[in-house]
Parts: sequence; C-alpha cells; structure tokens
Amino acid sequence: MLAFRFLPLLAGVLLAVAAPALAAPAPAAPTETTAAKTAAIQRIDPTFWWVGMKNPKLQLLVHGPGLRAATATLRTYPGVTLDGVQQLASPNYLLLNLTISPTARPGKLQLEFQGNKKFSYAYELRERTTPQDKSKVQGLSQQDFIYFLMPDRFSNGDPKNDYVASMRAPKAARDSMYARHGGDLQGIENHFDYFKSLGVTALWLTPVVENDMPKASYHGYALTDYYNTDRRYGTTEQYRQFVERAHQNGLKVVHDVVLNHMGSGNYLFLDQPAPDWFNQWPRFTRSNYNASALNDPYGSALDRKLYNQGWFDTTMPDVNQRNPLVATYLIQNFLWWVEYTGLDAYRIDTYPYSDPNFLMQWGQALNDEFPNLFKFGEAWVGSTAQQAFFARNIFQPVDGFKSNLESVFDFQSQGAIHDALRGDQPNLNRVYEALQGDWMYEDASRNVTFLDNHDMSRFYSVIGEDFAKYKMGLAWLLTMRGIPQLYYGTEVLMKNFSNPDGKVREDFPGGFAGDKQTYFTAAGRTGQAGEAFEYVRKLANYRKDHAFVHSGRLMQFIPQDGVYTYFRYSPAGTLMVLLNGNPGEKTVDGTRFAERTGGFSSGVEVTTGATLPNLTSFTIPGKTAWVVELR
Amino acid sequence: MLAFRFLPLLAGVLLAVAAPALAAPAPAAPTETTAAKTAAIQRIDPTFWWVGMKNPKLQLLVHGPGLRAATATLRTYPGVTLDGVQQLASPNYLLLNLTISPTARPGKLQLEFQGNKKFSYAYELRERTTPQDKSKVQGLSQQDFIYFLMPDRFSNGDPKNDYVASMRAPKAARDSMYARHGGDLQGIENHFDYFKSLGVTALWLTPVVENDMPKASYHGYALTDYYNTDRRYGTTEQYRQFVERAHQNGLKVVHDVVLNHMGSGNYLFLDQPAPDWFNQWPRFTRSNYNASALNDPYGSALDRKLYNQGWFDTTMPDVNQRNPLVATYLIQNFLWWVEYTGLDAYRIDTYPYSDPNFLMQWGQALNDEFPNLFKFGEAWVGSTAQQAFFARNIFQPVDGFKSNLESVFDFQSQGAIHDALRGDQPNLNRVYEALQGDWMYEDASRNVTFLDNHDMSRFYSVIGEDFAKYKMGLAWLLTMRGIPQLYYGTEVLMKNFSNPDGKVREDFPGGFAGDKQTYFTAAGRTGQAGEAFEYVRKLANYRKDHAFVHSGRLMQFIPQDGVYTYFRYSPAGTLMVLLNGNPGEKTVDGTRFAERTGGFSSGVEVTTGATLPNLTSFTIPGKTAWVVELR
Repeated sequence: MLAFRFLPLLAGVLLAVAAPALAAPAPAAPTETTAAKTAAIQRIDPTFWWVGMKNPKLQLLVHGPGLRAATATLRTYPGVTLDGVQQLASPNYLLLNLTISPTARPGKLQLEFQGNKKFSYAYELRERTTPQDKSKVQGLSQQDFIYFLMPDRFSNGDPKNDYVASMRAPKAARDSMYARHGGDLQGIENHFDYFKSLGVTALWLTPVVENDMPKASYHGYALTDYYNTDRRYGTTEQYRQFVERAHQNGLKVVHDVVLNHMGSGNYLFLDQPAPDWFNQWPRFTRSNYNASALNDPYGSALDRKLYNQGWFDTTMPDVNQRNPLVATYLIQNFLWWVEYTGLDAYRIDTYPYSDPNFLMQWGQALNDEFPNLFKFGEAWVGSTAQQAFFARNIFQPVDGFKSNLESVFDFQSQGAIHDALRGDQPNLNRVYEALQGDWMYEDASRNVTFLDNHDMSRFYSVIGEDFAKYKMGLAWLLTMRGIPQLYYGTEVLMKNFSNPDGKVREDFPGGFAGDKQTYFTAAGRTGQAGEAFEYVRKLANYRKDHAFVHSGRLMQFIPQDGVYTYFRYSPAGTLMVLLNGNPGEKTVDGTRFAERTGGFSSGVEVTTGATLPNLTSFTIPGKTAWVVELR
Repeated sequence: MLAFRFLPLLAGVLLAVAAPALAAPAPAAPTETTAAKTAAIQRIDPTFWWVGMKNPKLQLLVHGPGLRAATATLRTYPGVTLDGVQQLASPNYLLLNLTISPTARPGKLQLEFQGNKKFSYAYELRERTTPQDKSKVQGLSQQDFIYFLMPDRFSNGDPKNDYVASMRAPKAARDSMYARHGGDLQGIENHFDYFKSLGVTALWLTPVVENDMPKASYHGYALTDYYNTDRRYGTTEQYRQFVERAHQNGLKVVHDVVLNHMGSGNYLFLDQPAPDWFNQWPRFTRSNYNASALNDPYGSALDRKLYNQGWFDTTMPDVNQRNPLVATYLIQNFLWWVEYTGLDAYRIDTYPYSDPNFLMQWGQALNDEFPNLFKFGEAWVGSTAQQAFFARNIFQPVDGFKSNLESVFDFQSQGAIHDALRGDQPNLNRVYEALQGDWMYEDASRNVTFLDNHDMSRFYSVIGEDFAKYKMGLAWLLTMRGIPQLYYGTEVLMKNFSNPDGKVREDFPGGFAGDKQTYFTAAGRTGQAGEAFEYVRKLANYRKDHAFVHSGRLMQFIPQDGVYTYFRYSPAGTLMVLLNGNPGEKTVDGTRFAERTGGFSSGVEVTTGATLPNLTSFTIPGKTAWVVELR
C-alpha cells in the first residue's frame, strides 16, 4: 500500500482570470508570466488564504522537488511580512512563515524562490465572507434534525464522475460491497426535497475529501488530499456550491473530518516533509483502540502511546500532532474549509485518538475564528463519564486536558435504547440512567443522539424488525434532548447487521439508475416502509414546528412498572412522552407527574391525533410510545 | 411500631463521684444536691461535652415533661455563656445555646430551670484527650486491612448481657435468623489475637449504638439512642474501653453510623421535639432507593424528594436534616463519639440518602475538630461517576453539592470482580475498566475495596465455591489500590446467598458456647477453610510488611488474552500481579511490562515461594493469581 507513486493532483486553474472576491475556488497556481520557471512548485498548502483572520499568522507548506535548497522572499506587499523560512528533513519542502496584519488587503502575494533556477508564485489572499454572510457557518442546535448519509451510497446524480481515469480506483462497481458505487453531490442535491419533506434540517455526509486509495475508500476516512474533494463526488468548487444551495434550501451541512490519520496515498505520506510528521514505529503497530488508556490514572505509558500513536490501519498512517508544524498544517486546513465553503459543523471522526493538547489547540483556533461553528466528536467509549471527558464538562483538567468540544455523539443513550428495545421485555431503566449522567456535561443538550450509524448494525435489525419497537425508538429520538441524527434509510426500514460493515452501507433504493424500487416517492414506499417514513415525517415536522419540543426543558421520572415517562416543556407548551416497554398494556397513575401536568386537563397523541381525556389515570398499550401534547 | 411507650433509658450514674478528667463515661446526671428537684429532666443531649473544641458553640437538647414552660439560666461559669433558650413545638423540650470560650476550664455548669418548680442540673465539661493522645483517632490508610463483623453474630464473650430485661427484645435466640444471637464486645475482644494473626489492622463493627426495637434489630441500623451503646453488646463505657484495648493491640476501630434515619423506638421519635424534626408524609412513604434522582439534571422534584425524604422502612423514620436544629443535634453527636472513645473512622450507612447540604456541613464539622478521623460512606450506585460524586472528586459542584467525604466503598470494583469471576471464563476487562474510572476521584487510593458484605451474597457462593477463583479474588483484594475490607468468615469460606439476607449473617463458627466447630484455631479450620485462612493470612501479612505493596503506586496494563496484569511499586520494591481468567494456561509476553520490570531479572510468587526465573516470557496456569515480588 505504501509504495504507490505520487500523482500530482493540482488542477491548473489560472487565478489571474478572476477578480479576487469572485476568485475561482480551485487551488492557487503560478502566475502566467512565471509559469515557465515554476514547474518546481507542485503545490502550496493552504492553497489560498484570507485577510482579516483573527490569527495573523500563516504558515505555508511549499512542495517541489529540491525546494529545500532554495531561498524564498516576498515581494513587498502592504501589511504582509515574510517572517522566516524553515527547512525540513525532506529536500522537497520549504515552510514560509507569514504575518498578515489587519490592514492587509486581498490580492496576490508574489513569492520568489531562488534555487538552481529562479521562479515566483502568486499566492492569493481573499476577502473573508463568513463574518458578514449569515447563511454561512450557521452551527447546529436542538432545532436541527441531521440526516447522515454516505455520498457514494445515496444517489448517483452525475454519471460523468463515475469514471475518473487518473484515480487509483477509477471506476464505480455497484456489485462490490467495498467498491465505489457512484453516488455523488449531485445525487444528494437532487433529493433536497426528500429531506425537506422528512423534516430534516441538516445533512451530514461521510468525508467528501479526496480518498485516492486503491480500494475500499468509499467511506472517505482515508484522505489523500487535505485541500480537495474527491472528484468522484464533484470538484471542490462544486462542493462549495453544494453547501451554498443546501443553505438556500434550509439545509445545513455537516463536514466529516479526520484529525489523527490520513490515507497512505496522501502526498504528505508518500513524500514526507520529515519523519516526525508521522507517529513512527519500528514495525507496523496498530492502535489498541482503547481510550481508557488515555486517562487511566494507573495507565502504562505503552498503552497510552499505543492508543494515541498506534496506526488505525495499515493504510491509515497516524499523524504526529505533537509536532507543532503538523498541528499548524492541520488547524489551517480546518479553518480553510469553513471559510471557503461556509459549512455549518464539523463531525470529528475518532476524536479521542488525537493528541489531547492538539485537540485543545485545534478547538480553540476554530472557536476563535468561527464562534458559530458547531463541532461534535465521535468518542465511542463505554461510560457517560468517559464520553463527557471528551466534551465540555464539569471535570477539572486531567493531565492538563480539558475538552473544549461543544458536543459528542451520545453513544451511551444509543447503547441504552438498543439494549432496552432488543429484548423481549424492554428495560427502559437503562435509558433513564443514560440520561441521568448528563450532570457531567457542561450542556448535554448539544449531544448528538442517534439510533444507528454506518459502523453499527441497523436499528431495525437490532430490534428484530419489530415495528412497534421501531416507533418507540424513533419517538424517543425525536423527542429526547439533544440533536437527533438519522442514518440514511432508517426512515424506510433499511436493515442489516454490521458484520460485515458493508452490509449496513447499502445503496439507498431509488438513488441509482436502474433501481427497481425507489423510496424517494410515496408511491415507491410500499408497505411498512411507507408507514415508517410517515411516522418519522410526522414527528420530525411536529418537532420542527414546536420549539418546546426541540428546545424545551427536559424532565424525566424514574421508570415505574416498565413505563418511562418524560416531558419537554417551556412556557409555550408541554409534551409528555410515555414509553411502555411491557408486552402488555399498563395503567399509569398520572398524578405522579403533577409537576408537569398541572394546568392541563387532557392531551393529544401527535402521531395518531387520539385524545387522552384524563391525565390523572390512563392505560397505555404494550410496546407503545405515546407522544402527547398537553392541552 | 410507632405506638411503643417511651422508656427512659438513662442510667443514674452520678458524675460527682469522679474527677473531671477521669469522669465516668455514662451520661451526665443531676447533681446530688438538687436530685429531688430534677425529676423533670429526663436527659440532656449531648450527655456531656468538652472544653477546647474548635467550634465554641454548643446546643443542648433538654428533655423533660412540661419543660418548655420553664426558664433556664446558667450560674456564672468563667468562659461559658448561655446565649439563648429556644422553645420547640413539643411541650417537653428546651434548647439551650451556649458559647464555650477557649479559656473555659473543665468543670460542671450549673443549669437552673424555673417552671412550676425550680431545679438545677450539673452539666459536665471535660478536658479533651484526642489532641494529645496519638493512640486515639488514628484514621485509616492503605496500610490497613479492615475486618468487618456483626457483633451479634461473631462471638458471645459475656453471657450476662444475653438477657436485658428492660429491652424490647430482651433475650438472645440463636435459632432465629433475625433475633439477637448474643454476640458482644467481649466476644470480639477475646479474639484480638485471631485478627492479628490474620494480618488485620482495623475492626469495623455494625453499629454498636442502642437498637431497642422489638425485632430484627441485630443489624444495628435502627438506632434508638444516639448516646448509648446497646447494652446487649456492653455499656457505653465498655465500648470506650474496647476501643482503647483495640488500640493497645494494634487494631483500629471503625464506628458504623447512620445519619438519615433512626429506629422508631428512639425517644426523639416517640416524643418528637417538633414535627419538622422528621420528614413527614401524609401516609407512610418509602424512599425510591434511587440515588440517580439526586443529581439527575432532568429529575423531578418528586423523585428527588422521595429519595431524600422517603422512609427507609416503616420502622426507620427519616430525619429532617434540613432543620438546622436537627443538623446540630446530629453533628454534635458524631463529634461526641469521636472525642469520647477515640475511634478511628466512621463508616457511614446509606450516605447519599442524607440531605446534600447537611452532608457537607457534617463532614466539615468533623474535619475541623478531628483532622485525622477517616470517614467512608456507603454509596451503592451504578457507575464510577455516581460513586465518585459522593466522595472528594474532580467535579465542579452540582446543585451546590461538592462532597467532602474522604472515601467511599468501591462498589464498582466489587461488582466488576464478581462479574469477572462469576462466569466460566472470567472477563477481567471489567475490573480493569472499574479501576480506570479512578480519574474522577481526588484520591481513589482511599476507597475501601471489598469482595462482599452483610448486604450481598457471600463471595465464595457467588463464584460457585471455586477455590481457584477464591484465591484470585483474595489476591486482587490484598494487592489492589485502596483499603481492603474482609467480611467476617470470608477467610474461612463462609458461604450463602443474600436472599434472605440473614443467610449471609450467620454466626462465626466457634464464637458461641456449644459450637461444634471452631474456626478460631488452626486445628478447627479443617480442610479448605484452613487453606483459605492460610492464603489470606500469608498475603495480608506480606502486604502489611511491605509498604510498596499497600502504599506503592499502581500501574495497570490493558488485559490481553484474558490476563490482567498490574504492579504496585515504589523505590523500595515492585510487586507484579497477574490474574489469568482463562480456564487454561497462557503464555505472557513480559516485555510489554518493561516500564515496570526494567532493572529486575526474576520474581518470587509470594504465596507459594515459587521462582519466576524469566520476566520476558512466562506461562501462567488457568484461573490463577500470581503475586510476584520482583528481584
């Protein structure tokens, strides 16, 4: 895997043809006048930058054969200085440290290099748009409902990008579980109406950055270029437009990122700036995948090092974030995507695997530049405490680490609802207890709740394809505190177990030419799939339209006799949710809930419209969720 | 239960016969000269007090028929003032608020009361002994090994107290599971040598305070007099002497206390100072026994109130600690026992059931007066976070609560070791993870570790009476961080399941006249019981003699292939412990432990004396604990 030849990927777009504010989005390139002399520069990361960032520092990683031997200077540019040039172990890089003062104007910096030859590079500084454009970087809150999909598996909207000759896996092959299937940004955009109808307000796509790996890279977590989208989804500019059009359609965009590893086809790995840009081992060494080692007060240095510095996979080298140059490279890249596209949130893969100090630094840099940006991390750990450790919490720092991350996936409530609904007699105490642990978070209402994702068995299969339990799970997801996330297809009862994981990443029916069935239309959603879709649609839209449901306070009562009862409420309204885990009906003493039912005399179950005439005593059928608006 | 007639319990000991510093320990009483006029005063709590306490305030609860109608004055006493007299709802009480300045000397305060009659009371102020006597209030640390016993069930050393005519359950009856069996303080003292031989350094007795209840009060948690021991164990003075002699024998004493409830036979309940001294309900209302309600950010007021203010049982009224007068009454009582007896530690029953603010106040008052006193609480909850919430921890205050308790029972590691050793293939990951959570404590090495207690099935039964697993559990207990506690009889394989709980509270064989077998002698410990005793004895004494074992640092490695490995170490030595949960042998790559084995070349298994010649690779048999001192 590690021997692949490096393929230069820069498109030769000439920036000189566009005015700065409307500049073409692809990477900056040599100016025409010096083109003949600039063959030596293969790329500069970040590919362009902005004036007016809070942090005036910018570090450019310049890549080109033999470049280390060159001197670099900056032709006079008002407000910008070249503070220093730094060599790396590799002969093919130079680092340029710039300061861009608040007075600097957009334009092109003329960087001049003198080695065996002399050449120059026009590096673009743009005007920022995110501070003034409120449609950009909107963040996420409990108002949102996230739809999570894998772009390769959702819908193929542009057959032209199904075959990209220059890539290591050039062609789509839908008959293979781990090959590319051809889904793309256009396919997603074609179904904006589908999401809107469902009540979705935000889209989370598995990573759209380039994954030019020879196989199984459809998932997107083996990035090979920090500054380009994968062309099989669309160009980088098309992605920017995708975000823009999503915003125009009332849909936010969650950008999926990986901080701790990259794909082995990445140019930075194939031609390493320096050995210490990666966590090196005498021979291939896997992570122990156990975050416990990180903050175990009795942990061995070895277990901790294995966790943080072991490789995720043979094809995914582990990045050395303790190297400040690497940290700067990464941080600038993640600032770049936000300012460039106006994306609303980052979903951070394998969050705890990163170096703890780097995580704090990364989060702070993003908070400084984009206070509205929402960030949530994947910390798939075994307890609420350990999960809260990776979010903003009420703990004192541990070994100097204090998370500044807004939000994490709520694996604890997800595990609890799976456990609760898996068996013959759902035990909802586990769910109650999972929520109880929220006292450890600064604000757990920012947690992202979910029933399943691409790494676990699909919810409908876990619960034995029991439609009654399905409705309990969905009702819980759409009324519980937090930001709910739905995995594509769960709304139409897509199923399968995660062994092998490809089985839970199947194509969305109707998303691809020639599909016999489509779930995108009411007519296509035959049978229970249609019923499921309607249940989700009704609840999600009800939730969307009632602030007290999505953003009201939560009160939960200790489950009694297998019935779990909680409320969402504000001065504007009160929702009572009952989950009866018993196979049979249960009569509930409603007087116990007087704290929340006081002032109300009846209720309406919002999915059926049925009236609950008496709040002091009522009988709820077995395996049922009641979502009751009090009147 | 609630209709029992109040029986005055004060012994009529005359304090005038003894010099202050050597005063008789029983409660203070009227002076001889005024005895005729003092029939109206049944008791004053605290029964006596000391000069030189850090807190100069003292609040006396004076009890006598019609006493509220009386005035109270203090005859001039240098350094002591009567600041105020407070009436309560009951006609039978007065509260006297005194200030005792640092200059006050020991002696007798003459309190004068004027109602229908005039009478006076000589209230004794003693000299403190705990500050100067280092044998008193020694506290506990990892150096200790606690032996936990039920005095009624351990040994009957004084047949004279088997029948106490004035008590509600006057006679011992060994044939009944829930009756008194006759064990007493003398019985325990008779076996000091047994404890010492076993390597024990501290004794924890279930409560020795009076439990004058008509039945099932042998456990001691339904106290009926805050200022007297149960006469069936011995007098209050005998208990003081018991502590003294225990100290002379190198044995510390843990005093078991209840803060949140009392027995319904308590005079304070039968003749209530005021209704708000108890948590009152329109009809009998049980606690929901769920501490989750306490710090659930979404909890209902009802669930929280049920937890904190619901009654533990019909016979155990719940005390209203939010009433500052009650708080003062309780705090003074718990100061009294320490200063009076020199006890070393408090074990606090049902700790989280108490009012959170009261707990902080109680802990602070004890810390102020007795900095060496050790306090550990029973918080039987479901997660490490919830357990750490009740100990000193790294959390910010939650709803104003921040525990100041040194230590809690480690129910998490106990549950984990049970789970690990219960099944066919012990899963030691649970144990590793339980310890990992220690990052939430201020100092988890103060936690009290254990394998079983009087409220749960005995360890030997839980593990299916498998002696190999037994040794794994005991090896873990005696080498893991924390203060180990052994439940009486576990060292000789006493067994049974906790349903009904009386089955795990059987008499210690040999402790009672006529016992056919005795486990107190080597000759009596036939078969595997003797082998078990020897295993515990050997390990506990080894631990006692090697500071790096009991107080060294802990390092644990993530279990691999079912083998859990950890180390206790200091510059003075290193202990390597391996627990192989597999049924069969396992070869271990010892190079993984280089951080701790560096500098050593071999080891000796301390229970067998076997040599481990090679630390880089070795094969450990199935279901085995190796406790290896490195050489």
